[in-house]
Amino acid sequence: MRIALDAMGGDFAPGPIVAGAVQAAQENESLQITLVGDRDQITAALGADAGSPRFEIVHTTQVVGMDEKPTVLRTKRDTSIGKCWELMATRKVQGLVSAGNTGAMTAGALFTKLFIKGVKRPGIAVVIPSLQGPVVLLDVGANSSCKAEHLFQYGAMGSVYARQMLGIENPTIGLMNIGTEEGKGNDLVRETLDLFQASHLRDRFHGNVEGRDLYQGTVNVFVTDGFVGNIVLKVSEGVLDLVLKLAANGVLSALDKEKHLAEAALRRVAHEYHHSATGGAPLLGVDGVCIICHGSSNDRAIRNALLRAARHGDNKVNELIASELERTPTSVA
Amino acid sequence: MRIALDAMGGDFAPGPIVAGAVQAAQENESLQITLVGDRDQITAALGADAGSPRFEIVHTTQVVGMDEKPTVLRTKRDTSIGKCWELMATRKVQGLVSAGNTGAMTAGALFTKLFIKGVKRPGIAVVIPSLQGPVVLLDVGANSSCKAEHLFQYGAMGSVYARQMLGIENPTIGLMNIGTEEGKGNDLVRETLDLFQASHLRDRFHGNVEGRDLYQGTVNVFVTDGFVGNIVLKVSEGVLDLVLKLAANGVLSALDKEKHLAEAALRRVAHEYHHSATGGAPLLGVDGVCIICHGSSNDRAIRNALLRAARHGDNKVNELIASELERTPTSVA
Repeated sequence: MRIALDAMGGDFAPGPIVAGAVQAAQENESLQITLVGDRDQITAALGADAGSPRFEIVHTTQVVGMDEKPTVLRTKRDTSIGKCWELMATRKVQGLVSAGNTGAMTAGALFTKLFIKGVKRPGIAVVIPSLQGPVVLLDVGANSSCKAEHLFQYGAMGSVYARQMLGIENPTIGLMNIGTEEGKGNDLVRETLDLFQASHLRDRFHGNVEGRDLYQGTVNVFVTDGFVGNIVLKVSEGVLDLVLKLAANGVLSALDKEKHLAEAALRRVAHEYHHSATGGAPLLGVDGVCIICHGSSNDRAIRNALLRAARHGDNKVNELIASELERTPTSVA
Repeated sequence: MRIALDAMGGDFAPGPIVAGAVQAAQENESLQITLVGDRDQITAALGADAGSPRFEIVHTTQVVGMDEKPTVLRTKRDTSIGKCWELMATRKVQGLVSAGNTGAMTAGALFTKLFIKGVKRPGIAVVIPSLQGPVVLLDVGANSSCKAEHLFQYGAMGSVYARQMLGIENPTIGLMNIGTEEGKGNDLVRETLDLFQASHLRDRFHGNVEGRDLYQGTVNVFVTDGFVGNIVLKVSEGVLDLVLKLAANGVLSALDKEKHLAEAALRRVAHEYHHSATGGAPLLGVDGVCIICHGSSNDRAIRNALLRAARHGDNKVNELIASELERTPTSVA
């Protein structure tokens, strides 16, 4: 499998991005990586690996800034993100990974219309920890003006992802709402509830779920629109930081001799939680593998994202999404 | 000030509800409390205080169940929640407090149309802890199909609340969105941004804020619709539980002699965080004081809610909301 890696995307690019590519290539021998970006900088970052046949370099002269609007892809014509999408659209690569501008990455999918057959809109899925183990939440920001059929498809795509990538045999699906009873919420969620209940997914559809269900892991797949999902994800990170800081202050001031042990333990908790978010999130619905990484990704996060992209291909996630969506009666979604 | 207390609302009613009323009456001598619910149960719960002139009992025969739909107020005509609203609508009381069904409490406001002059829709405000101290988030569930002018008014009402109740002199206002740049998000937030920027609140309006800003306390007042706000609030509680559990597991297994000290410290952290949520949340925009408490409220939470209701009246929150809304040009909101 050949994957394009946006070598210029991310707060610390290209150093740790390229280092992550070298690590992933060592780990997975069938992985071929196309590094996209400034040839000189990439060559310097590759060092001794610069001549390796595992790495191809595709030179670009521009970079999408982290604060630029997604539409910049239309005016800047030689960016690393734009080139990654072009390589996938022309089937030169089967996947792409970037820690760059999330909006531009999503826009690339919309501009190239590189969707799996039947998909209306792609959605970003994240795997987050819960009291019952990892759960899938989508969409977390690709689509902030969702229609009911988009949300329905997120449920279908998310459950394929949960099965193929998390090994959950019959993933249950929940619709994020402000109460569990039917009729709760706004028009969008009421219409979406009807779609699920009329579909072949009805047996695995748990109905409405609430915010507190997410970290309790009440279902395996949590469906919401990109506006709510993005805010939920970022609020969660904020609570984590606050609570760990409060816990650290509280615990460390209460202890005497074993302070250092507690400090190390709290660091591990924060690390483990953050770790789960740093392997990158797939943009589901794209015909090809597209993994979007956190801007602050280090070499290990990029390595994990590349390996996850390869597994996504190996595990036939997209093929199974296509057949899942075929089963949706056209009169319903 | 006379306040109606829904003695039948809450998971453990009426015992701790009535106990909270007794504590609040001891604390604030000018507080008169009308206990609404089953006379026999309330009298039994009052015990020695049953004869006190501080407590009036208004008998009702029905209770709104925690899972009943808000519209139940139209069919059950003698519920404690319905009676509380009737007492306020007929000016027998100046405030009401309930730990019962939140939807029914909100519906009571809509049915009686007991709004402050100029208010389009009331919104529930919660005070939550942040790294910079307490911040106000609204709406968290009264209004899940918001218009831009509702969100604008939440900013105006929330900033009066932050000033009068939290003592923040010039509260800054942020609009919850999925990115800080103008143009981000959906139609609703883009339209709301325009309203704020064209209003007299523009100098204190910080613009768009993201999920992570909430617990960082980037602004003093966070404005969002009741759908997003409710999910954000409940997700936060879920993260707190998960992180404290992970922290407890991690820290306690790392320690040897000082385990018990760490355990007590972690319990204090959880208690302090939850505590902030248990004083009740005002339904802002109601002409009168309406405080909605968590269903699991204990006596201390009810006591705090009653005292907060009295402060709300003493601090002229509603009068100042009315004059704040008067300053909004009608062409804008």
